[in-house]
This record gives sequence, structure tokens and C-alpha cells, in this order.
Amino acid sequence: MIDSRVTAPAPADIDAAADRIRGRVRVTPIIDVDDIAAIPLVLKLELLQHTGSFKVRGAFNRVLSAGGPPEVIAASGGNHGLAVAYVAHRLRLRADIFVPTTAPAVKVDGIRSFGADVTLIGTSYAEALCASLARAEQTGALMVHAYDCPDVVAGQGTVGREIEEQVPDVDTVLVATGGGGLIGGIAAWWSGRARIVSVEPYGAPTMHAALAAGEPVDVSVDSVAADSLGARRAGGPGFAAAVSAGVVPVLVTDDDIRAARALLWNRLRIAAEPGGATALAGLLSGAYRPDAGERVAVVVCGGNASPAS
Amino acid sequence: MIDSRVTAPAPADIDAAADRIRGRVRVTPIIDVDDIAAIPLVLKLELLQHTGSFKVRGAFNRVLSAGGPPEVIAASGGNHGLAVAYVAHRLRLRADIFVPTTAPAVKVDGIRSFGADVTLIGTSYAEALCASLARAEQTGALMVHAYDCPDVVAGQGTVGREIEEQVPDVDTVLVATGGGGLIGGIAAWWSGRARIVSVEPYGAPTMHAALAAGEPVDVSVDSVAADSLGARRAGGPGFAAAVSAGVVPVLVTDDDIRAARALLWNRLRIAAEPGGATALAGLLSGAYRPDAGERVAVVVCGGNASPAS
Repeated sequence: MIDSRVTAPAPADIDAAADRIRGRVRVTPIIDVDDIAAIPLVLKLELLQHTGSFKVRGAFNRVLSAGGPPEVIAASGGNHGLAVAYVAHRLRLRADIFVPTTAPAVKVDGIRSFGADVTLIGTSYAEALCASLARAEQTGALMVHAYDCPDVVAGQGTVGREIEEQVPDVDTVLVATGGGGLIGGIAAWWSGRARIVSVEPYGAPTMHAALAAGEPVDVSVDSVAADSLGARRAGGPGFAAAVSAGVVPVLVTDDDIRAARALLWNRLRIAAEPGGATALAGLLSGAYRPDAGERVAVVVCGGNASPAS
Repeated sequence: MIDSRVTAPAPADIDAAADRIRGRVRVTPIIDVDDIAAIPLVLKLELLQHTGSFKVRGAFNRVLSAGGPPEVIAASGGNHGLAVAYVAHRLRLRADIFVPTTAPAVKVDGIRSFGADVTLIGTSYAEALCASLARAEQTGALMVHAYDCPDVVAGQGTVGREIEEQVPDVDTVLVATGGGGLIGGIAAWWSGRARIVSVEPYGAPTMHAALAAGEPVDVSVDSVAADSLGARRAGGPGFAAAVSAGVVPVLVTDDDIRAARALLWNRLRIAAEPGGATALAGLLSGAYRPDAGERVAVVVCGGNASPAS
């Protein structure tokens, strides 16, 4: 059963987020490509965002909405931690970031480079989250949840809003889903006006399972994209937005993700991380099959892997 | 003395090139960034072009202008060879590509992947060029020169034309120079309407030396960017365009290039090759210092290095 207090952000919340974070985040470019899938498509290059992923949008919106607290805290598989550390650095706040020991070194090093305190703990995002919640109770720092927070989801929704400015006639947007912040924000923006497809690894099917169960449920996580899509269950606001917008979930294998990532590099010199290539994998694998003439956009949402990996 | 038969392309030639190659090359995106130099600037992400560099523009224009010959031949440090091989593959032509043995494996493998015949010969672009000219005399294939050809320069000029569509108020464009095809094309497009800055390694100062001497002269080549900027002398049409447009040459060190390349990766997840980061190095190193309020665009022109290198 959906908690009745959990609601999706409204488009007006996303407009407000866009105003709040304008000038602090990059307007990321799109590129039209006609030679990487069977159809022409638009790639939204959100991996060119500050800290290499969309996460700074939600983090800025959350922290600025809270009026600029002196101290923030977050748990993260890596990208959200980078984003919160960056936001804290820019706003001159203290930041405590909890990261599982399995996070890629490139992300952990990046978090430290922004001056944040890093605690490596547990082997999953969920364990790092529990530890961060305990610490937050002690310190009173503002918790910036990676996705289970309306202000965060509204911030991620500015990706959807920006896509509309850049590709007003889009029919379908493919988005990779972990905890559901990005898909929730994009679904909330486009609700009913475009088809939103959630692409998830078989080994981390949070939204797929939540939509099947009618509520967020725990899934087991084992995927090449686990460090960015490895949430154990979908967050409330994102799930509510996905339900409301009629999000279509599709699943891909780790090999599909690896193939999409290789293709992005070989054909476009775009160095996506596995989670960043997952939405494209949904199209290339045939898991999602657009109709003839359908105008499709794919969000390439993160680039924080070692390029040699 | 400038050969009086060598003239720069006119803007009308670049318009014609744009019409000729439209739909065959990508419109590459720009991104506004305000945190990688002391000033806001625009990056033109031409490394996202087919084959990872701008070279397909000139190659398509040359081959299509010639009416689609059955066979083409080219010499290249790598990127031009990739482009000619790609063009031949798309137009179903035979391609003979001559490459120095010093070319990166990633480029040689790419050329072969398009079905071209590759001849590895000599240790410099100039040696590969001589061998390709001899072969062309035997086979009668259409020589697609990497830069010393008006149709090639006009094709590269479509980068400048696209920048005008995307950033109509630009004051200054920074461009890396090897043989002078790209700078020549961009200078020909903007001639007199924007400042065009040629950024060159101290170890490959072709345009700098040509402008100082009043004509293209041989330089010695030794730079981390030699595989893309390692021409021994500037080509005639590019030089003529640079003179006519009053191109400003500046020089950077290999360390400046490495630093710009690292920054593009660390701040933007853009994996440029050394030559692709050279124009930005001109700004970051202080070799070119814009005035207050000057609107600057930087062309990131190539991404064909192993990402781990």
C-alpha cells in the first residue's frame, strides 16, 4: 500500500527547483545520433554535469530549499556523495558522506577532493544509509537522501524539464533507475505528455518490482551497475510519480549494459559508467521497442567510472 | 612567398560544403562551462563527431565534391585516416590509408574496422604522405589530403559555421592547429567577424612559424600531441585563410596540454586526446588572455586516444 503522505512532485515544484539551482548546475547538451540504434535518437548528455552525474541537481535543490544548513550528511554508492560534497564545497558547508566499501575509488577520491569527510562502511548502499541516519541523529546535520526526498526528486526533474526545452516534440524518454529519484522527477515533469521508460538491470530491478507489487519492495542487488543503480528499494516520491505517470519498466542484462557502454565509447567517445549506459541498453537490447516514427530521447546520466575499467 | 594559386575558401564554399555533408555528419553540441577557466566559456564538442574528430567533415566534402570516385587514398597521423576510411565505408568505396608506425593503436584498429587497407610506413606523417602520393600515381585513386586541399578546408569550415548557429555572439574561437585545415576553415568562415586564435604545441608550431615567415615552412615535430597536430608544415589554403583572417597564434607546452586534458576529464568527463585538449590549453595556460567580457569558444576537436593513456 502506498503511504498516503508520499506524493510525487508537481511540475510547479520542478519549475521552482529549476529557478533555485539555475546558474549552479550546467545545462547539459543533447546530441542527435542516427547510427547507434536502428532509429534516430537524441542523447541527453547529463554525464557532463558537475561531478559527472545528474545528482547535483537534487542535492542543490534539497540544500537550498532547507535554507543552507551549516552541515549536511548523505549516504551514497558514490555519485550522490560526490554531488553532496560538491554542493557543500560550493556553499561552504561541512559534509559527512557515508559510502560502502564497494564504491569505486574514483568516486571516493572525488568526494574527498571536495573536502568532505568520508566514512567507508558496509558493503551496500543500504548499510551506508543506516550508518548515516544514526550519525545524523547525533550531529543534527541536514540529511540529503539520495532519492527518498521530494526536494531531491524535484531537483532531478529539472533534467526532464531541460529535455522539453531541447526536444519539445519528444515522444519517449528512456531513463535508468536505481532508487527512483531521476525517473520520478522526469516522470513528474512529463506526466501524461510523454512515455517514460524505466530501464533497470535484472540484478537491481527496484522500480520493476515496485510497480509489480504495487508498492516499493526490497530487491536483491547484483549488477555491473550496482554502484549507481544499486538501491535496495525505490523511494516513495519517485515511486508515486512513476505510478502516476504510467512509467513503463524494462529489464536488461549486465551484458546489455556492457555492450551499450562499449558502443557509446566506440561510436561517440562518450565515457559513460555502467549505470550511465543502462538507459541506452534498454533500446539496443530490444527490451524497449519504439514504434515507427517515435521520437526517442535517452538519458546518459553518469560518467564516474575509471575510463579503463 | 605565397603561391598565388593558393586561395582560402570563401564563406560560400563553406555553405556549399554544409549542404553537401548535411545528414552525413553530426551537429556536435556545445556546452557552457563557468568553472574550468577564469571566465565563462563555450566548449564545442567536436570530439563527439563520427570517428571522434572533425576530420569527417572535410573528407566527406572532398570525396562528394569529386563525384564519388571508386577508390580513395590518404595519409594520416590517424584521425584523418579514420575519417577517410569511414567516408569510404559509408559511400562503399575502396580506401588505402597510409599511417606512420607511430600512430596510436586505437586509431589504426579503427581504420581497419571500417574495412580500409592500412599501410604502416615511416615514423612521421610526412613519410606516410610521400608513400601515399607514390601509390596514388600507380592506382589513380582520389587523394584526400588531410589539410592541403581547398575542399577539405571548406569542409572543416563547417565547424565554424555551426559555432555561429550555436553561439552567434562569440567574440573569439580557440582552435588547435596541425596542418591548418581546421583553423583555415574556421578562419575562412569567420574572417574579420571574430578573433580566431591558433593554439599550437611548442613542439609542432606550424602556423606560428608560417605566419612568422610569411609562408608555410618546415618545423620539427616533437610533442605529446604529435599524432594529431604533427604536420611538418601548414597547408596552402589553410595558411591563406589564416593570413586573411588575421589569425592570432599562441604556443603551449606539452605539460599545458596534459593539464588541460586532465581537467576536461576530471571536471567534465570529456575524454579528449592531447590534440583535442590543446585549444583549451591555450586559455588555461594564459598563452591567450581574453579581455573582460569577451565571449570565448574553444573547439575540443578530437577524442581518439586510449582513455587510460
